[in-house]
Amino acid sequence: MREVYVVGIGITSFSRLEYPLVEIAGYPAMMALKDAGLSSVDHVYVANMGAGRLNKQTGLASAVVDHLALTPAGAEAIENGPASGASAIKQGYMAVASGLHDTVLVTGAERMRAANSLETTDFVATLTHPLAEYIYGVTLPSLAGMFTRLYMDKYGVTSRHLSMVAVKAHANAMLNPFAHLHELITMDGIEDGPDAGTNNPMVADPLRFYDCCPVSDGGACLILATGEVAKKLKKPMVRLAGVGQATDTHAVHERKDPTEVTAVRLAAQQAFGMAGFKPSQVDVAELHDAFTILEIVESEEAGFFKKGEGHKALEKGLTKIGGQIPINTSGGLKAKGHPVGATGVGQAHEIVLQLRGEAGARQVKGAKRGFTCNFGGFGNNVVCLAFQREG
Amino acid sequence: MREVYVVGIGITSFSRLEYPLVEIAGYPAMMALKDAGLSSVDHVYVANMGAGRLNKQTGLASAVVDHLALTPAGAEAIENGPASGASAIKQGYMAVASGLHDTVLVTGAERMRAANSLETTDFVATLTHPLAEYIYGVTLPSLAGMFTRLYMDKYGVTSRHLSMVAVKAHANAMLNPFAHLHELITMDGIEDGPDAGTNNPMVADPLRFYDCCPVSDGGACLILATGEVAKKLKKPMVRLAGVGQATDTHAVHERKDPTEVTAVRLAAQQAFGMAGFKPSQVDVAELHDAFTILEIVESEEAGFFKKGEGHKALEKGLTKIGGQIPINTSGGLKAKGHPVGATGVGQAHEIVLQLRGEAGARQVKGAKRGFTCNFGGFGNNVVCLAFQREG
Repeated sequence: MREVYVVGIGITSFSRLEYPLVEIAGYPAMMALKDAGLSSVDHVYVANMGAGRLNKQTGLASAVVDHLALTPAGAEAIENGPASGASAIKQGYMAVASGLHDTVLVTGAERMRAANSLETTDFVATLTHPLAEYIYGVTLPSLAGMFTRLYMDKYGVTSRHLSMVAVKAHANAMLNPFAHLHELITMDGIEDGPDAGTNNPMVADPLRFYDCCPVSDGGACLILATGEVAKKLKKPMVRLAGVGQATDTHAVHERKDPTEVTAVRLAAQQAFGMAGFKPSQVDVAELHDAFTILEIVESEEAGFFKKGEGHKALEKGLTKIGGQIPINTSGGLKAKGHPVGATGVGQAHEIVLQLRGEAGARQVKGAKRGFTCNFGGFGNNVVCLAFQREG
Repeated sequence: MREVYVVGIGITSFSRLEYPLVEIAGYPAMMALKDAGLSSVDHVYVANMGAGRLNKQTGLASAVVDHLALTPAGAEAIENGPASGASAIKQGYMAVASGLHDTVLVTGAERMRAANSLETTDFVATLTHPLAEYIYGVTLPSLAGMFTRLYMDKYGVTSRHLSMVAVKAHANAMLNPFAHLHELITMDGIEDGPDAGTNNPMVADPLRFYDCCPVSDGGACLILATGEVAKKLKKPMVRLAGVGQATDTHAVHERKDPTEVTAVRLAAQQAFGMAGFKPSQVDVAELHDAFTILEIVESEEAGFFKKGEGHKALEKGLTKIGGQIPINTSGGLKAKGHPVGATGVGQAHEIVLQLRGEAGARQVKGAKRGFTCNFGGFGNNVVCLAFQREG
């Protein structure tokens, strides 16, 4: 296999965006082309989950390649629920590694806020099992609520721990100009103070308002290329060193123990195995905290902390910027935002920024190795990526 | 790059299917696993265009991998309009060729007939340019009608030629038990006889009823593997020898000359270049005849006949079974059916059957080399595949 490098990156604000989906995909791609110093690529992938339903559009990849004047490059849209972004990066990896293409542009885009919120909630719920979950009225927050309760009971995680994830995420997002939520929150405001109940109402017991990510529009782009191309372009040499992916039962209740998120464990092990480094050597990670509990769980399953000890590490501040392993420096899904199809590409964008030393006020000093975990369904299809700065 | 072989195939009837989308994807996959003699694979791709809108389902690939008990194999859905099928096969090719996976299952599935026909027509129209075509009321038949008129004027193609494509397609479909339309039609019945006008009414001038493919449900599956695996499984050695893909302007009217279908030409050239054989060496081909004119056009752009001479070859019977280059032995989209996301996989299924010598009454004797053209959008994203029987 040929080695694969990231030679260009781009991102939109994650927010409500009042322009067409094809432009949400196109704008970060133009930034990435400019960043790379390229005006054409061999192939294009578009990561997206909702175009058919929310935006009544198919053939999105063809529209994007045309919009960017990148024809006759081939193009596809990749859908893997909220893990569509990292799945598309995996396709880009294979396209370059196989020798079929030398330069591949991967852009993720979602326009969710064009639909009303009931429609959006129902749309997101369609990623649950159609016959065993969805038809009984399961939504993602309700599923996450039940999961969180099990985790609290088993490992002694409390509501305070969940709020610590939110407070850290919002603090990091204050340092990220592209983040959706620029709102500094405190433990006093959402947990301990007299107004905490009003400020942070229950959504799906035990998850409250500040435990849930916002619904965002947004796009993010990565350009992948061979080592030869990367050297020619004189960009910092950030290598996509490992790719891992695993699935689990589609319905959560069919798992022997739902608190064991096996797909994260397997996907992380694959990514680290391929990259040739260990979780303890990672300098910065982006985990898929669509709900606060997920950052804690993934920090364990990915191997940064022992099972059941993620919340203790959080308490000790080990996952803050400046800590042992800073997690979600971007603000995470919780505060940076979660435009579903774009999220995985956005996570990779943050890691590349960090490994290039271009993350500004939220820079992790001397970061050389990075990791992302993009969590599809409710843990039924997970893609992990490992990145390494060379030279 | 490692070489890639087809080790298993499966297909459903193309028809109206009254079972869930995940089963339409799953049933041909089970046939293909049985055909290959495998009970697990390393990765799964699901080709689909309409799940989000027509079936209100996302995360389809996760549902399919779970339904087939193939977890923890990774999985994605691939969307490239009506060329989703061949696009997914291309991803499978790269996954095996790159060395990342040894066995990859590619299943295509569509359930279009669950929606009413207005909804389906609108859904298909969403693959046109959202801002330059779709919003002005373009549908696929109307676009194809305008294209056909241009082609007739330029090259002397007549309505009789279009009907010859339909008559050949229906005749071939009579020999294919999985085809949607089992209805023998004649030139007398749809073109020359006294009832032809009633039997074959105008749809979008100059296209009439029998010039348009039906709306079908259906699924088809291919399992790809390394040469080593293929040898172990003792299946006929059918190699996926070439993969080509090209895009063109999304909006048809932006092309300098809309009768030049450049994306087919480029994709075919790539596929043949990679495979190392010429159009003249092909024994059997499946072309994307969603409208009768397209079989004629693609037979030229793929290199089987000179530009503007496809209809003459048809007239001479060169594309019939037993002719110089039999085209659409399966019945084609026209009579086999067109479950959009599954179509490209279905085309490959037919070619593999032919190269294995298992095509029964429609077998092309001694077929060694095959070709498919899967036409996305209205020629804006085309994927061509070349297959070769070894040994």
